[in-house]
Amino acid sequence: MASSAAPRRRGRPGHDQDAVLAVAVRLFNERGYDYTSMYDLAVALGITKSSVYHHIASKEQLLQMAMDRALDGLFEAADEVRALDVSALERLEQLIRRSVIVLSDRFEYVTVLLRVRGNTAAEQHALARRREFDGLVTELVKQAQAEGDVRPDIDPPTAARLLLGMVNSLTEWYRPRPGSAESIADAVTVLAFDGLRT
Amino acid sequence: MASSAAPRRRGRPGHDQDAVLAVAVRLFNERGYDYTSMYDLAVALGITKSSVYHHIASKEQLLQMAMDRALDGLFEAADEVRALDVSALERLEQLIRRSVIVLSDRFEYVTVLLRVRGNTAAEQHALARRREFDGLVTELVKQAQAEGDVRPDIDPPTAARLLLGMVNSLTEWYRPRPGSAESIADAVTVLAFDGLRT
Repeated sequence: MASSAAPRRRGRPGHDQDAVLAVAVRLFNERGYDYTSMYDLAVALGITKSSVYHHIASKEQLLQMAMDRALDGLFEAADEVRALDVSALERLEQLIRRSVIVLSDRFEYVTVLLRVRGNTAAEQHALARRREFDGLVTELVKQAQAEGDVRPDIDPPTAARLLLGMVNSLTEWYRPRPGSAESIADAVTVLAFDGLRT
Repeated sequence: MASSAAPRRRGRPGHDQDAVLAVAVRLFNERGYDYTSMYDLAVALGITKSSVYHHIASKEQLLQMAMDRALDGLFEAADEVRALDVSALERLEQLIRRSVIVLSDRFEYVTVLLRVRGNTAAEQHALARRREFDGLVTELVKQAQAEGDVRPDIDPPTAARLLLGMVNSLTEWYRPRPGSAESIADAVTVLAFDGLRT
């Protein structure tokens, strides 16, 4: 699933490349992308550096693949939500809920994505896709406001950023366990849509 | 105001040291702490490196001072809120509101604090103080729940982390302008306590 968007293809795509990527994102998050070398990756995988290059062209390719995996998850969620025949508020709630699930399912990939600061063209592209996703959430807030289901006294772009800020903050403290995604998604949506106050 | 907690005192504390610190935190946030040298700081200040050392003992001291300035602001807010003779829910709302104001007033300092990963003893100490602050917010959620003012179906530590996650996410996109802190604090508290739904 990871090979078609990669800038170059090498060796055996699919399972092996996925396994290399999974270890790479773990190292990126533990040590920082800049502080992770292809040699470190080879050591962590228990293979030689030239064997790593059999699967992967460069460290930059791994970063690109990690960011794509996170972003693709979010945009797939947006596509699914767009197809629902429900109110804008319900689509917004579903999109926030599904964003939490994507973050939980692809935790290490989303963490890589959220730490990117735009130092390269690939990172700039990822930041542009993040802004596009923010824009989708802003549009849903606006529509739900127009339908009378979201309070009129909140600015839609601000609401969208606070919603996604709360979701993204999960990478700082939440650690996915089997079955935990639904309950954290419940907490996020209850707080965001109904508030803490009884 | 910055000198008493510093590990060493040099040169003229007060205004000059504050000015050096302000430029240092801007560089730390722009380039990353690891990528900022004392030479870079001297260039940005338009003085020699030895003049920088007249004000400051080390880069680590600057990081420590920056983290302290952020954390001191948050704990001062907690002390002020503790003294209020109001319900736990009102104290919680006030603490979240004041956290946003501290973040806005000390934006670069809070940004430095939130990027720290615990690589040194000073960073570990700052992370421990952040956890202590999280604990104060958790306690207020618990008390407000006991008083029947916060919904019973949310776990207090989770609620505290989501609240602070939303506040902290402001460093990612919000840029303080004169007079903007109150309106962003309104948006955060409305969303957190009353929810987006009408």
